[in-house]
Amino acid sequence: MGAREVGLPERVPAGGLPPRVEIWEVGARDGLQNESSVVPVEVKLEFLDRLAGAGLTTLEATSFVHPKWVPQLADAEQLLAGLDRHDGVRYPVLVPNDRGLNRALEAGVDHIAIFASATETFAQRNLNSTFDDQFGMFEPVVARARKEGLEVRGYLSMCFGDPWEGVVDVEQVVRAGKRLLDFGCSQLSLGDTIGVATTNQVTRLIEAFGDTSALAVHFHDTYGQALANTEAALRAGVSTVDSSAGGLGGCPYAESATGNLATEDLVWLLEGLGVEHGVDLGKLVETSVWMAGQLGRPSPSRVVNALAG
Amino acid sequence: MGAREVGLPERVPAGGLPPRVEIWEVGARDGLQNESSVVPVEVKLEFLDRLAGAGLTTLEATSFVHPKWVPQLADAEQLLAGLDRHDGVRYPVLVPNDRGLNRALEAGVDHIAIFASATETFAQRNLNSTFDDQFGMFEPVVARARKEGLEVRGYLSMCFGDPWEGVVDVEQVVRAGKRLLDFGCSQLSLGDTIGVATTNQVTRLIEAFGDTSALAVHFHDTYGQALANTEAALRAGVSTVDSSAGGLGGCPYAESATGNLATEDLVWLLEGLGVEHGVDLGKLVETSVWMAGQLGRPSPSRVVNALAG
Repeated sequence: MGAREVGLPERVPAGGLPPRVEIWEVGARDGLQNESSVVPVEVKLEFLDRLAGAGLTTLEATSFVHPKWVPQLADAEQLLAGLDRHDGVRYPVLVPNDRGLNRALEAGVDHIAIFASATETFAQRNLNSTFDDQFGMFEPVVARARKEGLEVRGYLSMCFGDPWEGVVDVEQVVRAGKRLLDFGCSQLSLGDTIGVATTNQVTRLIEAFGDTSALAVHFHDTYGQALANTEAALRAGVSTVDSSAGGLGGCPYAESATGNLATEDLVWLLEGLGVEHGVDLGKLVETSVWMAGQLGRPSPSRVVNALAG
Repeated sequence: MGAREVGLPERVPAGGLPPRVEIWEVGARDGLQNESSVVPVEVKLEFLDRLAGAGLTTLEATSFVHPKWVPQLADAEQLLAGLDRHDGVRYPVLVPNDRGLNRALEAGVDHIAIFASATETFAQRNLNSTFDDQFGMFEPVVARARKEGLEVRGYLSMCFGDPWEGVVDVEQVVRAGKRLLDFGCSQLSLGDTIGVATTNQVTRLIEAFGDTSALAVHFHDTYGQALANTEAALRAGVSTVDSSAGGLGGCPYAESATGNLATEDLVWLLEGLGVEHGVDLGKLVETSVWMAGQLGRPSPSRVVNALAG
């Protein structure tokens, strides 16, 4: 099925929002790393090419996490070697540690992201570290990357709730995030890894940071809150938003339930709010419809389903 | 499958919201009238009974639209006769015209809703009337219902966009809505029938009404905007929200795409915002899981999918 001619919402600009939002597209990394099947590298390359063609300018391309943990992205070197880089598009990659940084440098990457935890339990389970020790692990990675001229983003996961600990302390999140920025991260992405956050929580955390210029948000739609949370973040001063084309990033509970906020649903909102986003929604929907065909299951994005004829 | 033990979001009350929201549950009417199959009356009765058991206090039960147009609700009389009414629960029914009102009065209904259009084209297509003539049709229906002691809600559809006309004029919506209130409707539900609205549009329309005390909102999630739009309405002063358990009310484009805002996703937000809602989320999720089993397809609600183990 192809995309139908695309409708767009009525544009109703008003105050209180950034004039432009940078969409940090994570579909090729955060989306595909959760797929049960391994997607061929040629498909990934076409996916990235189409995303750039749809106007997205930040495409998180892959990850140098050990293939034992994320076999779906074991082809990182091959993918980067085959990448048809579009002008004006950044292709950051996820780097978990010093060995990952070595691989990234060898592959000629100029923009990386590290992945830290806002909670003790998730640090132990996901990073095999304590909460405190993770900073000792990341500091030299960031320092070396910066010395090599790379830009570094910091992801901070479990900022709004933790499946083992429940409520997460706001001050702990702020402390952890500021350490990553102090190390030399130029951006900090606040992640609601399990999708439990609601809007007042988002506003509270962003206000606790004070300076919003280096902040991004990363919401999962597990409880249907991702778009509302994103808008709360925009109104609190954030202007970089993570999302995944078609809502890629499956949830284990239901075949079509989403992981990440769908880029198309975000674009619909931004267009309606009169916030500049640079995306051709028709091309993006076509891309997600094509990718859904490659994966053999429907996109969980509402906009994709509404516009795919 | 049963519902897992239910988690709830962190409660983060803050200003700018109503202390309590009345959820107008439309699953049994707006949800089921869009089902391709006809649900047996016994299943509908159990559904309504479970919804009341989960704490919902306004259950739109059925419709007296002619069975030729909505065969799914042709059992309206039978349903109302079999209803096990819970204390403190209202069971309004949809009434399209004078004949529908006759049926409602015969069935002993004490609360009805009429269904008007904010646009010319939808008035012609859905009501077989012009935009102007619809008021002449509704005025005597509302007057007679009020004289008989019934409470009357007015639905106004296509308030934020129309599939034939595109943009809908705000002043026209306000004029139409105020006429319904002037006739004697005690509540006016502003409907985004095709789900295209974004948040600034919602704020703009509600502000154009001025007095929000009689307003309700009715969002469809076709483009993933329903929850964000609902929050915008709450922040603009609205405190009655229409939603459907499990997100019932299928969209023709995709098997699992939603029609109405899912009540569970709304409850998750309200709980997080510290807004009183009165719903036992675990019982509600159990109800939607059971109903999904009756319908033979998964619920499109994110919360239902996340919590149904």
